[in-house]
Amino acid sequence: MTTHPPRTDPRLESWRTFLRAHARVIRELERELAAEEDLALTDYDVLVQLAAAPGRRLRMSELADALLLSRSGATRLVDRLVVGGLVERVMCEDDRRGQWAALTDLGHARLRRAAPTHLRGIAKHFLDRLTGEDLNALRRMLEPIGEA
Amino acid sequence: MTTHPPRTDPRLESWRTFLRAHARVIRELERELAAEEDLALTDYDVLVQLAAAPGRRLRMSELADALLLSRSGATRLVDRLVVGGLVERVMCEDDRRGQWAALTDLGHARLRRAAPTHLRGIAKHFLDRLTGEDLNALRRMLEPIGEA
Repeated sequence: MTTHPPRTDPRLESWRTFLRAHARVIRELERELAAEEDLALTDYDVLVQLAAAPGRRLRMSELADALLLSRSGATRLVDRLVVGGLVERVMCEDDRRGQWAALTDLGHARLRRAAPTHLRGIAKHFLDRLTGEDLNALRRMLEPIGEA
Repeated sequence: MTTHPPRTDPRLESWRTFLRAHARVIRELERELAAEEDLALTDYDVLVQLAAAPGRRLRMSELADALLLSRSGATRLVDRLVVGGLVERVMCEDDRRGQWAALTDLGHARLRRAAPTHLRGIAKHFLDRLTGEDLNALRRMLEPIGEA
Protein backbone atom coordinates (compact mmCIF):
# COMPACT_ATOMS: atom_id res chain seq x y z
CA MET A 1 0.00 0.00 0.00
CA THR A 2 1.55 3.26 -1.05
CA THR A 3 1.31 6.24 1.24
CA HIS A 4 -1.25 8.94 0.73
CA PRO A 5 -0.72 12.72 0.83
CA PRO A 6 -1.68 14.41 4.11
CA ARG A 7 -4.98 16.25 4.18
CA THR A 8 -2.95 19.43 4.62
CA ASP A 9 -1.06 18.92 1.33
CA PRO A 10 -1.30 22.40 -0.26
CA ARG A 11 -1.67 20.79 -3.70
CA LEU A 12 -5.14 19.67 -2.69
CA GLU A 13 -6.32 23.25 -3.06
CA SER A 14 -5.64 22.99 -6.81
CA TRP A 15 -7.68 19.79 -6.95
CA ARG A 16 -10.58 21.42 -5.10
CA THR A 17 -10.43 24.44 -7.39
CA PHE A 18 -10.59 22.12 -10.40
CA LEU A 19 -13.68 20.39 -8.94
CA ARG A 20 -15.41 23.66 -8.07
CA ALA A 21 -14.78 25.13 -11.53
CA HIS A 22 -16.21 22.02 -13.19
CA ALA A 23 -19.26 21.93 -10.92
CA ARG A 24 -20.06 25.64 -11.43
CA VAL A 25 -19.77 25.58 -15.21
CA ILE A 26 -21.78 22.38 -15.54
CA ARG A 27 -24.47 23.77 -13.26
CA GLU A 28 -24.79 26.93 -15.37
CA LEU A 29 -24.88 24.93 -18.62
CA GLU A 30 -27.55 22.63 -17.19
CA ARG A 31 -29.62 25.55 -16.01
CA GLU A 32 -29.46 27.41 -19.33
CA LEU A 33 -30.16 24.36 -21.47
CA ALA A 34 -33.14 23.42 -19.29
CA ALA A 35 -34.51 26.98 -19.23
CA GLU A 36 -34.00 27.87 -22.90
CA GLU A 37 -34.30 24.49 -24.60
CA ASP A 38 -36.06 22.26 -22.07
CA LEU A 39 -33.29 19.73 -22.51
CA ALA A 40 -31.12 17.94 -19.93
CA LEU A 41 -27.38 18.31 -20.42
CA THR A 42 -26.96 14.52 -20.24
CA ASP A 43 -29.49 14.14 -23.08
CA TYR A 44 -27.70 16.77 -25.11
CA ASP A 45 -24.45 14.83 -24.68
CA VAL A 46 -26.07 11.68 -26.10
CA LEU A 47 -27.36 13.57 -29.14
CA VAL A 48 -23.90 15.07 -29.76
CA GLN A 49 -22.18 11.69 -29.63
CA LEU A 50 -24.67 10.13 -32.04
CA ALA A 51 -24.54 13.09 -34.44
CA ALA A 52 -20.76 12.79 -34.65
CA ALA A 53 -20.77 9.04 -35.33
CA PRO A 54 -20.72 7.47 -38.83
CA GLY A 55 -24.32 7.01 -39.97
CA ARG A 56 -25.38 8.87 -36.82
CA ARG A 57 -25.51 5.62 -34.87
CA LEU A 58 -23.46 3.88 -32.19
CA ARG A 59 -23.44 0.49 -30.53
CA MET A 60 -24.73 0.92 -26.96
CA SER A 61 -21.35 -0.12 -25.56
CA GLU A 62 -19.59 2.50 -27.72
CA LEU A 63 -22.03 5.16 -26.61
CA ALA A 64 -21.48 4.27 -22.94
CA ASP A 65 -17.71 4.50 -23.44
CA ALA A 66 -17.99 7.84 -25.23
CA LEU A 67 -20.11 9.22 -22.39
CA LEU A 68 -17.87 7.65 -19.73
CA LEU A 69 -21.00 6.01 -18.37
CA SER A 70 -21.82 2.47 -17.33
CA ARG A 71 -23.77 0.42 -19.85
CA SER A 72 -26.86 0.57 -17.61
CA GLY A 73 -26.54 4.34 -17.20
CA ALA A 74 -26.38 4.79 -20.98
CA THR A 75 -29.38 2.49 -21.44
CA ARG A 76 -31.48 4.58 -19.06
CA LEU A 77 -30.57 7.77 -20.89
CA VAL A 78 -31.34 6.29 -24.30
CA ASP A 79 -34.65 4.83 -23.09
CA ARG A 80 -35.79 8.33 -22.21
CA LEU A 81 -34.70 9.75 -25.55
CA VAL A 82 -36.46 6.93 -27.41
CA VAL A 83 -39.72 7.84 -25.65
CA GLY A 84 -39.24 11.44 -26.80
CA GLY A 85 -38.59 10.31 -30.38
CA LEU A 86 -35.08 11.82 -30.49
CA VAL A 87 -33.28 8.47 -30.67
CA GLU A 88 -34.31 5.06 -31.99
CA ARG A 89 -32.99 1.59 -31.33
CA VAL A 90 -31.91 -0.21 -34.47
CA MET A 91 -30.58 -3.61 -35.37
CA CYS A 92 -27.80 -3.65 -37.93
CA GLU A 93 -27.81 -6.16 -40.80
CA ASP A 94 -24.11 -6.86 -40.48
CA ASP A 95 -23.84 -6.85 -36.71
CA ARG A 96 -26.22 -8.95 -34.68
CA ARG A 97 -24.02 -8.73 -31.60
CA GLY A 98 -25.62 -5.77 -30.01
CA GLN A 99 -28.19 -3.07 -29.99
CA TRP A 100 -27.45 0.22 -31.63
CA ALA A 101 -28.82 3.67 -30.88
CA ALA A 102 -29.46 5.98 -33.84
CA LEU A 103 -30.25 9.68 -33.98
CA THR A 104 -33.65 10.39 -35.54
CA ASP A 105 -34.33 13.39 -37.78
CA LEU A 106 -36.24 14.90 -34.88
CA GLY A 107 -33.23 14.32 -32.61
CA HIS A 108 -30.93 15.95 -35.12
CA ALA A 109 -33.19 18.98 -35.42
CA ARG A 110 -33.41 19.20 -31.64
CA LEU A 111 -29.64 19.16 -31.33
CA ARG A 112 -29.22 21.85 -33.98
CA ARG A 113 -31.73 24.05 -32.21
CA ALA A 114 -30.12 23.61 -28.79
CA ALA A 115 -26.47 23.89 -29.87
CA PRO A 116 -26.27 27.71 -29.93
CA THR A 117 -27.46 27.91 -26.30
CA HIS A 118 -24.91 25.33 -25.24
CA LEU A 119 -22.01 26.84 -27.20
CA ARG A 120 -22.86 30.32 -25.93
CA GLY A 121 -22.81 28.97 -22.37
CA ILE A 122 -19.43 27.28 -22.81
CA ALA A 123 -18.00 30.55 -24.13
CA LYS A 124 -19.59 32.69 -21.41
CA HIS A 125 -18.78 30.52 -18.41
CA PHE A 126 -15.45 29.06 -19.51
CA LEU A 127 -13.70 30.00 -22.76
CA ASP A 128 -14.13 33.77 -22.58
CA ARG A 129 -12.82 33.82 -19.02
CA LEU A 130 -9.44 32.42 -20.03
CA THR A 131 -6.78 33.76 -22.39
CA GLY A 132 -5.78 31.78 -25.46
CA GLU A 133 -2.45 31.09 -23.76
CA ASP A 134 -4.18 29.74 -20.66
CA LEU A 135 -6.48 27.55 -22.74
CA ASN A 136 -3.47 26.05 -24.49
CA ALA A 137 -1.70 25.46 -21.19
CA LEU A 138 -4.82 23.86 -19.75
CA ARG A 139 -5.08 21.52 -22.69
CA ARG A 140 -1.42 20.52 -22.47
CA MET A 141 -1.73 19.81 -18.72
CA LEU A 142 -5.02 17.95 -18.77
CA GLU A 143 -4.70 15.93 -21.97
CA PRO A 144 -2.60 13.11 -20.43
CA ILE A 145 -4.94 12.99 -17.43
CA GLY A 146 -7.98 12.50 -19.63
CA GLU A 147 -6.31 9.74 -21.60
CA ALA A 148 -5.16 7.80 -18.55
CA MET B 1 -29.12 37.32 -28.07
CA THR B 2 -25.35 37.28 -28.21
CA THR B 3 -23.63 35.20 -30.83
CA HIS B 4 -22.19 31.82 -30.06
CA PRO B 5 -18.77 30.44 -31.08
CA PRO B 6 -18.77 28.17 -34.14
CA ARG B 7 -18.56 24.45 -33.50
CA THR B 8 -15.15 24.57 -35.16
CA ASP B 9 -13.77 27.08 -32.62
CA PRO B 10 -10.39 25.52 -31.75
CA ARG B 11 -10.80 26.66 -28.14
CA LEU B 12 -13.50 24.02 -27.73
CA GLU B 13 -10.79 21.36 -27.72
CA SER B 14 -9.53 22.81 -24.41
CA TRP B 15 -13.05 22.62 -23.00
CA ARG B 16 -13.44 19.01 -24.11
CA THR B 17 -10.06 18.13 -22.62
CA PHE B 18 -11.15 19.69 -19.33
CA LEU B 19 -14.34 17.60 -19.36
CA ARG B 20 -12.53 14.38 -20.24
CA ALA B 21 -9.91 14.88 -17.52
CA HIS B 22 -12.62 15.47 -14.93
CA ALA B 23 -14.66 12.46 -16.02
CA ARG B 24 -11.67 10.11 -16.03
CA VAL B 25 -10.37 11.11 -12.61
CA ILE B 26 -13.83 10.99 -11.02
CA ARG B 27 -14.47 7.59 -12.55
CA GLU B 28 -11.22 6.21 -11.10
CA LEU B 29 -11.91 7.73 -7.68
CA GLU B 30 -15.43 6.26 -7.70
CA ARG B 31 -14.16 2.85 -8.68
CA GLU B 32 -11.43 2.75 -6.03
CA LEU B 33 -13.64 4.03 -3.22
CA ALA B 34 -16.34 1.50 -4.10
CA ALA B 35 -13.90 -1.38 -4.42
CA GLU B 36 -11.76 -0.67 -1.36
CA GLU B 37 -14.22 1.03 0.98
CA ASP B 38 -17.65 0.11 -0.36
CA LEU B 39 -18.56 3.79 -0.36
CA ALA B 40 -20.03 6.00 -3.09
CA LEU B 41 -18.04 9.12 -3.90
CA THR B 42 -21.16 11.26 -3.47
CA ASP B 43 -21.61 9.82 0.05
CA TYR B 44 -17.97 10.50 0.84
CA ASP B 45 -18.46 14.12 -0.21
CA VAL B 46 -21.36 14.52 2.23
CA LEU B 47 -19.29 13.10 5.10
CA VAL B 48 -16.39 15.45 4.26
CA GLN B 49 -18.64 18.52 4.26
CA LEU B 50 -20.21 17.61 7.60
CA ALA B 51 -16.86 16.76 9.21
CA ALA B 52 -15.50 20.18 8.24
CA ALA B 53 -18.51 22.11 9.61
CA PRO B 54 -18.71 23.59 13.13
CA GLY B 55 -20.17 20.95 15.45
CA ARG B 56 -20.03 18.53 12.50
CA ARG B 57 -23.48 19.59 11.36
CA LEU B 58 -25.00 21.67 8.56
CA ARG B 59 -28.42 22.98 7.67
CA MET B 60 -29.74 20.97 4.71
CA SER B 61 -29.71 24.11 2.54
CA GLU B 62 -26.06 24.78 3.45
CA LEU B 63 -25.14 21.19 2.70
CA ALA B 64 -26.85 21.38 -0.70
CA ASP B 65 -24.96 24.59 -1.49
CA ALA B 66 -21.64 23.10 -0.40
CA LEU B 67 -22.23 20.07 -2.63
CA LEU B 68 -23.51 22.23 -5.51
CA LEU B 69 -26.64 20.08 -5.46
CA SER B 70 -30.31 20.86 -5.46
CA ARG B 71 -32.06 20.67 -2.10
CA SER B 72 -33.89 17.50 -3.20
CA GLY B 73 -30.67 15.91 -4.42
CA ALA B 74 -29.02 16.56 -1.06
CA THR B 75 -32.05 15.18 0.78
CA ARG B 76 -31.88 11.91 -1.16
CA LEU B 77 -28.19 11.51 -0.38
CA VAL B 78 -28.68 12.24 3.32
CA ASP B 79 -31.65 9.85 3.53
CA ARG B 80 -29.41 7.04 2.39
CA LEU B 81 -26.67 7.93 4.87
CA VAL B 82 -29.21 8.15 7.71
CA VAL B 83 -30.32 4.58 6.94
CA GLY B 84 -26.69 3.49 7.15
CA GLY B 85 -26.24 5.29 10.48
CA LEU B 86 -23.48 7.59 9.16
CA VAL B 87 -25.56 10.77 9.41
CA GLU B 88 -28.48 11.78 11.63
CA ARG B 89 -31.12 14.42 11.27
CA VAL B 90 -31.20 16.83 14.18
CA MET B 91 -33.30 19.78 15.26
CA CYS B 92 -31.38 22.69 16.73
CA GLU B 93 -32.60 24.47 19.87
CA ASP B 94 -31.79 27.90 18.51
CA ASP B 95 -32.90 27.37 14.93
CA ARG B 96 -36.32 25.97 14.23
CA ARG B 97 -36.22 27.13 10.63
CA GLY B 98 -34.85 24.01 9.11
CA GLN B 99 -33.58 20.52 9.38
CA TRP B 100 -29.95 19.89 10.04
CA ALA B 101 -27.80 16.91 9.12
CA ALA B 102 -25.13 15.83 11.60
CA LEU B 103 -22.24 13.42 11.27
CA THR B 104 -22.51 10.47 13.67
CA ASP B 105 -19.48 8.90 15.39
CA LEU B 106 -19.90 5.98 13.02
CA GLY B 107 -19.90 8.38 10.06
CA HIS B 108 -16.77 10.06 11.33
CA ALA B 109 -15.00 6.73 11.73
CA ARG B 110 -16.11 5.69 8.25
CA LEU B 111 -14.72 8.88 6.77
CA ARG B 112 -11.39 8.49 8.58
CA ARG B 113 -11.08 4.94 7.30
CA ALA B 114 -11.93 5.86 3.71
CA ALA B 115 -9.85 9.06 3.48
CA PRO B 116 -6.48 7.39 2.72
CA THR B 117 -7.95 5.58 -0.30
CA HIS B 118 -9.46 8.79 -1.60
CA LEU B 119 -6.36 10.92 -1.00
CA ARG B 120 -4.15 8.30 -2.59
CA GLY B 121 -6.42 8.28 -5.64
CA ILE B 122 -6.34 12.07 -5.99
CA ALA B 123 -2.55 11.98 -5.86
CA LYS B 124 -2.23 9.07 -8.29
CA HIS B 125 -4.72 10.23 -10.90
CA PHE B 126 -4.28 13.98 -10.68
CA LEU B 127 -1.70 15.66 -8.41
CA ASP B 128 1.30 13.46 -9.18
CA ARG B 129 0.71 13.85 -12.91
CA LEU B 130 1.21 17.61 -12.78
CA THR B 131 4.19 19.71 -11.71
CA GLY B 132 3.91 22.12 -8.79
CA GLU B 133 4.12 24.95 -11.30
CA ASP B 134 1.26 23.52 -13.37
CA LEU B 135 -0.87 23.01 -10.27
CA ASN B 136 -0.38 26.65 -9.31
CA ALA B 137 -1.22 27.80 -12.83
CA LEU B 138 -4.33 25.61 -12.85
CA ARG B 139 -5.50 27.10 -9.58
CA ARG B 140 -4.92 30.66 -10.77
CA MET B 141 -6.85 30.00 -14.00
CA LEU B 142 -9.78 28.08 -12.54
CA GLU B 143 -10.35 29.95 -9.28
CA PRO B 144 -12.39 32.80 -10.83
CA ILE B 145 -14.42 30.27 -12.83
CA GLY B 146 -15.37 28.32 -9.72
CA GLU B 147 -16.42 31.46 -7.90
CA ALA B 148 -18.58 32.76 -10.71
